[in-house]
Amino acid sequence: MTITLPEPTKAIPDRAIYERRESGVRSYARSMPRQFNRAEHVWLHDNQGGRYLDFLSGCSTLNYGHNHPILKQALLDYITSDGIAHGLDLHTDAKADFLETFEALILQPRGLDYRAMFTGPTGTNAVEAAIKLARKVTGREMVIAFTNGFHGMTLGALACTGNAAKRGGAGVPLSHVSHEPYDGYHGPGVDTAELLERRLSDPSSGLDAPAAILVETVQGEGGLNVASPEWLRRIAEIAKRHGALLIVDDIQAGCGRTGGFFSFEDMGFTPDIVTLAKSLSGMGLPFALTLFRPELDQWSPGEHNGTFRGNNHAFVTATAALRHFWSDGHFQEDVRRRGAMLERRLDAMAAEHGLSTRGRGMMRGIHVGSGEVAEAITRACFAQGLIIETSGAHDEIVKVLAPLVIDDAILSAGLDILEESLREALTVTYGVAAE
Amino acid sequence: MTITLPEPTKAIPDRAIYERRESGVRSYARSMPRQFNRAEHVWLHDNQGGRYLDFLSGCSTLNYGHNHPILKQALLDYITSDGIAHGLDLHTDAKADFLETFEALILQPRGLDYRAMFTGPTGTNAVEAAIKLARKVTGREMVIAFTNGFHGMTLGALACTGNAAKRGGAGVPLSHVSHEPYDGYHGPGVDTAELLERRLSDPSSGLDAPAAILVETVQGEGGLNVASPEWLRRIAEIAKRHGALLIVDDIQAGCGRTGGFFSFEDMGFTPDIVTLAKSLSGMGLPFALTLFRPELDQWSPGEHNGTFRGNNHAFVTATAALRHFWSDGHFQEDVRRRGAMLERRLDAMAAEHGLSTRGRGMMRGIHVGSGEVAEAITRACFAQGLIIETSGAHDEIVKVLAPLVIDDAILSAGLDILEESLREALTVTYGVAAE
Amino acid sequence: MTITLPEPTKAIPDRAIYERRESGVRSYARSMPRQFNRAEHVWLHDNQGGRYLDFLSGCSTLNYGHNHPILKQALLDYITSDGIAHGLDLHTDAKADFLETFEALILQPRGLDYRAMFTGPTGTNAVEAAIKLARKVTGREMVIAFTNGFHGMTLGALACTGNAAKRGGAGVPLSHVSHEPYDGYHGPGVDTAELLERRLSDPSSGLDAPAAILVETVQGEGGLNVASPEWLRRIAEIAKRHGALLIVDDIQAGCGRTGGFFSFEDMGFTPDIVTLAKSLSGMGLPFALTLFRPELDQWSPGEHNGTFRGNNHAFVTATAALRHFWSDGHFQEDVRRRGAMLERRLDAMAAEHGLSTRGRGMMRGIHVGSGEVAEAITRACFAQGLIIETSGAHDEIVKVLAPLVIDDAILSAGLDILEESLREALTVTYGVAAE
Amino acid sequence: MTITLPEPTKAIPDRAIYERRESGVRSYARSMPRQFNRAEHVWLHDNQGGRYLDFLSGCSTLNYGHNHPILKQALLDYITSDGIAHGLDLHTDAKADFLETFEALILQPRGLDYRAMFTGPTGTNAVEAAIKLARKVTGREMVIAFTNGFHGMTLGALACTGNAAKRGGAGVPLSHVSHEPYDGYHGPGVDTAELLERRLSDPSSGLDAPAAILVETVQGEGGLNVASPEWLRRIAEIAKRHGALLIVDDIQAGCGRTGGFFSFEDMGFTPDIVTLAKSLSGMGLPFALTLFRPELDQWSPGEHNGTFRGNNHAFVTATAALRHFWSDGHFQEDVRRRGAMLERRLDAMAAEHGLSTRGRGMMRGIHVGSGEVAEAITRACFAQGLIIETSGAHDEIVKVLAPLVIDDAILSAGLDILEESLREALTVTYGVAAE
Repeated sequence: MTITLPEPTKAIPDRAIYERRESGVRSYARSMPRQFNRAEHVWLHDNQGGRYLDFLSGCSTLNYGHNHPILKQALLDYITSDGIAHGLDLHTDAKADFLETFEALILQPRGLDYRAMFTGPTGTNAVEAAIKLARKVTGREMVIAFTNGFHGMTLGALACTGNAAKRGGAGVPLSHVSHEPYDGYHGPGVDTAELLERRLSDPSSGLDAPAAILVETVQGEGGLNVASPEWLRRIAEIAKRHGALLIVDDIQAGCGRTGGFFSFEDMGFTPDIVTLAKSLSGMGLPFALTLFRPELDQWSPGEHNGTFRGNNHAFVTATAALRHFWSDGHFQEDVRRRGAMLERRLDAMAAEHGLSTRGRGMMRGIHVGSGEVAEAITRACFAQGLIIETSGAHDEIVKVLAPLVIDDAILSAGLDILEESLREALTVTYGVAAE
Repeated sequence: MTITLPEPTKAIPDRAIYERRESGVRSYARSMPRQFNRAEHVWLHDNQGGRYLDFLSGCSTLNYGHNHPILKQALLDYITSDGIAHGLDLHTDAKADFLETFEALILQPRGLDYRAMFTGPTGTNAVEAAIKLARKVTGREMVIAFTNGFHGMTLGALACTGNAAKRGGAGVPLSHVSHEPYDGYHGPGVDTAELLERRLSDPSSGLDAPAAILVETVQGEGGLNVASPEWLRRIAEIAKRHGALLIVDDIQAGCGRTGGFFSFEDMGFTPDIVTLAKSLSGMGLPFALTLFRPELDQWSPGEHNGTFRGNNHAFVTATAALRHFWSDGHFQEDVRRRGAMLERRLDAMAAEHGLSTRGRGMMRGIHVGSGEVAEAITRACFAQGLIIETSGAHDEIVKVLAPLVIDDAILSAGLDILEESLREALTVTYGVAAE
Repeated sequence: MTITLPEPTKAIPDRAIYERRESGVRSYARSMPRQFNRAEHVWLHDNQGGRYLDFLSGCSTLNYGHNHPILKQALLDYITSDGIAHGLDLHTDAKADFLETFEALILQPRGLDYRAMFTGPTGTNAVEAAIKLARKVTGREMVIAFTNGFHGMTLGALACTGNAAKRGGAGVPLSHVSHEPYDGYHGPGVDTAELLERRLSDPSSGLDAPAAILVETVQGEGGLNVASPEWLRRIAEIAKRHGALLIVDDIQAGCGRTGGFFSFEDMGFTPDIVTLAKSLSGMGLPFALTLFRPELDQWSPGEHNGTFRGNNHAFVTATAALRHFWSDGHFQEDVRRRGAMLERRLDAMAAEHGLSTRGRGMMRGIHVGSGEVAEAITRACFAQGLIIETSGAHDEIVKVLAPLVIDDAILSAGLDILEESLREALTVTYGVAAE
Repeated sequence: MTITLPEPTKAIPDRAIYERRESGVRSYARSMPRQFNRAEHVWLHDNQGGRYLDFLSGCSTLNYGHNHPILKQALLDYITSDGIAHGLDLHTDAKADFLETFEALILQPRGLDYRAMFTGPTGTNAVEAAIKLARKVTGREMVIAFTNGFHGMTLGALACTGNAAKRGGAGVPLSHVSHEPYDGYHGPGVDTAELLERRLSDPSSGLDAPAAILVETVQGEGGLNVASPEWLRRIAEIAKRHGALLIVDDIQAGCGRTGGFFSFEDMGFTPDIVTLAKSLSGMGLPFALTLFRPELDQWSPGEHNGTFRGNNHAFVTATAALRHFWSDGHFQEDVRRRGAMLERRLDAMAAEHGLSTRGRGMMRGIHVGSGEVAEAITRACFAQGLIIETSGAHDEIVKVLAPLVIDDAILSAGLDILEESLREALTVTYGVAAE
């Protein structure tokens, strides 16, 4: 097999229309100053003929790559036959198919009994619905979230998000949420689950009884911090003991990114509520889902709604994706193998420079010391046709979020680019100082 | 021309999968217990062969009807050629096309100078972005919204929404918003703009200086209440005088529903911020936009973001819709003619029963006295194949939100069904009692 | 009888200690730059031998004048005999005396059945207790207060206060309170009780169901605005109908200031909760009380407490005051006669200058057009030995809060000074400009 | 010297008036069902002739005992000569005397440069003023308080208080405050200052930049937890580094209770703001003070006010107390000696039963395992004429807050009663179970 390598262009497109008409809030367009027009599998193409290897995958929204042919064909067939595009929350064949497939391929094999709520098709909306429901069911207001957690940008979800710059955008104080230290936050000597238990058990701690504990098993935006299964089980027990609902925000870590469909599989606990979005549609279409135990389904009809809830195009591609990737264990095996390979490669790079790695499955990264170094690395990668981004409180983690369907050889070739860029950036940055 | 009439079925589909797996939060599926599988133009088809005339249009999300052939073809072509589906906020050909078309066909002819922010693809997200920006720019927290306003279901937008049942779902008190009486709220004798001016001018009124005044020109969910141009101009002046930004939420009333592309055209004021969603993509795809004066574009990169911002499929269909419908004045003329026809028909029905009508353009309805009567009417319509819904604080308004592209004769046929159902319901409900 | 006239000094005391050590938050000390050392009846004496007639009465805290001999003797006896000064909420003879006297002389004759809660000895604390209790009993969060209302400066009470400068001091947004227009706020043509009823009856008005409606019958700080008995009865009915508790904040208008012990007597409604402070101790000692219907007494022991609740010195003087002034109707008759005289005199002054008056009983004032004019008037009065202050959103009301025990002749002499100062200020201010 | 021992009565007074007219919120009156009528020095007398030794001291409000003859005489003289009782914030001889004495005897000898703000005469009001000022000066909203902290019951101060039952009384969610672990909260292995530093330094921790850090050096209500000087210095440094103001709430621990006038003396840091109340007047009169660095005095006149700010009776007794007790070091020496004695005695009691002690200076207690045991002990003490109370999250600490002026022999006699009651309670409670 011949490895297709990236062939980036240097052509910076005419940006006049963006300068004139698009808000300065745009961000990725700044570090990747190209105009893209086509994408398939792991490749993005710009309109000057350049080709880029995608190690960002829409922040884990494109786990199956761009325009996967099976999903694409399903969608084309659906549109061609005048399938319903928009149907509010009406029952449609597409919805029934999705629900039945999700039940058969995802829920039943894992012994999970959840109801599905089709929220507005954004992750933040799924989180808003989850915390609304938890507050309604428990009659409590306060939600416990964690340091470095990221849960969205609308006011309810933003209150749960740790990042100060994002929070600052609210323009009002963010209330009714307390951020507690995540697993390992205070170093190996401090058991942060124990800290939480202590405060919740103490009627004078100032921490109000929580409606929910909202947690990511791996903090995608927060720096690829990984919670151990033991810690998560402890958090699940603590939630139960104190009458709070456990919400796992699986928007970034779910849909195969960490190996299983859910990131919490085989860990010995079952969340009360789970949020999904990003790769759920499989093709990058807006789609989000909040799952919960049937006993918690205490919504009144329409109590949380939204014009685009239940995106039927997304039902179609999501169903196709479930059938293609989750009918047997092959895909998971591939992901695990690639995850292990990614781990080895990153560990080796980290070892070479005395750095450390983070993450789990196919969401892993290297802590390169600072956001400046990380930016130098990602810029160097981009110049060589590799799209790769950072995360963490200081953007100090270079993160690899390659499509899960990437061929091993291409993954390896992409990592070669990263390895070289890392070496170059660290030499330039630190090399002189070390003389 | 032969008028195609609705041919509904009575077959209630197997709901087991929904009962088992879909949250009880679903609402429209309850009053329209069919399973739909196909839709074109003004028609929805169920999977038993039934055909329904759509006077709901996805709550004004399908102004151009279902699967409009031109939009559909544009999308099929785009997908077939592996156009980018998901690109975060990267520049794409589809985005550039949209921006240039929007500038040329919408902004420039109307003398509007706005920047476009692609928020998460839901109306509520566009509203959250709008109020965040207003708070950031003004350094103030409080937003003035209006009685019966509806702006979305995430915490920031929900605080601006008037409906108590929706608000109750928050589970926390909703803060930093004051609801003031809308135009006409206190009857013809009370000038509610004057009430607002009085309170804002009084340093002891308890009404904090507002960051923004958020208003719909026609309150779609709130009961088709219409603000007069004079009142809106007054509100615009009040906002300016008191250092607040005027946000027009044009999510339901915009995109042609009231005649012009924006609902506030030719009224003699220019909003500082405008939100759009619903029919913006033209084909029912999730898409939302917040527009604002360039001077207000004070966002830091990424300060408000979201995985699905800038839905490229929607860029494609939106661009096609702008080109097809908004290149000249024919579409607007059609809408105005149909709006006038709708007005005449509804006025006649109202006159027959001593009722009153509400609304503007192609968003109009009849106040039928109570939610019970309204439900009886919409149920009778549905039985005859007409999909129609209610709005208002008590669901007491039967509202007609037909696709704007509906043929006059079909519109007329649909209104015949409504007329008959109205007569029947009012006779049954009140007739016996009157004997 | 010879009328004792004021004999002010011009000596400005050494302010070095204040400049050096007292916070700039002090206010009255600025407009009355003297150092006082002694006070009796209606007179304040400065330490240079000056004598000032007190038309401020500690903002209605000294309704019985300074150091009333009977109250003073009771306190001296109590202290001499080592009466308990501070006893937390322990039962003391002084407390029992107060409760029995209050029951016999105030509650029973008026047919009122209230429980007394001795809150921290400040008005703001009494208000905080009142709204806490209302929220606890109803399970609701929102409190309705009114434009121009003043209820205190701690965060819960401050949220109910209308004044923007005071509110701004909070440093955080003030939540869970909605300010509605007071009686007459929107002029004679607008029935503000009807506006409130409309919004509370409308489930889509955005006004959440209230825990309480908090109202002053006369707004002391807010500009001596008077609510009519009809309006207050309407508000009481509205509260009842909507499940809210009616709280009358009688801190300034109660204790005889408007004629009766409570300002709402004989108006045909009974508040659920009443707050008292200011003149309750009778001698200016810190003391506050929250009264409520027995069924509302749902506090847990200590759920609201405070070190100085139940000030025993104040129990003693308050009891003496109740016995001396409220055992029969003579005091009330005097107050009514003086109130009528005050009304006549102020009306005449207002008529002379085309101004209007405000207020009820012995809390009345003249609207002089602006805070600047009002300040000129009060300064001129002070120069002639009359202590008098302003109120209103713009400090535009010159208010007379003379001690209720003032001799008619002295009241008249004081009003002569006001009359002259008013004439002078209006001539100086407007006279020249008119040339 | 003959030791006067307590002589309690068993007579339960007629409680009908309280049942009928006093709110059930009363608490101390329940565990001490007597009616008191007189008090001097360390003794409280009931109206049946009983005499009780006061180890509660009004929760540290009576550090100089009841009706201290010098303070009492100063107050009698002041009242007799018609000294101003109530003067709002006008300058009075009494205020000037207090400020000059406080400057000369307290501030100057300690090298402290503070401005004094006379807030409403309650501790909670002093705290509200402190956090308002911190928010105003920093432009930030969030205040950091600590687990088990107690700061008052009005909404702003209550948000800083840790106790769940007290917080629950708010009826609204308490916002804009984060409770962090106090010194030692997580056991000896966890440096809680380090935890705080970590979170404040991390822009993704979810902990917003604080306006203030509000801390007690000894947590009086929270269980007599003591912060070490090292920890407090760390907290002071952390506040400074992160732009927050350090507020020491010295309401209970100040005024000599821990040895010095302020509880933080000789610790190597200077708070930005200090709150005082309780024993400040010396005689139990309502009085409170907020002190701050002159640069922080950014209040507008009247921006925080209150009817009873600057209680002149309290000025008089406070000044007398400062002169009598703080002109030289004798009083402090006495307090230290008694504190050491108290420590020895409590340590011995604790050692006998395998318990632990808490506290500093003359605010110390024993952790007796549970609130039930503690209640049994205090009840047994009361039966023998010793008034003593509990604190802590579970009321599990029996605390000794004897007047600081207590004779050593009487202190010893009181501790004998405690020792015996402790023995008895622990035998009864655990003895049988151990058989």
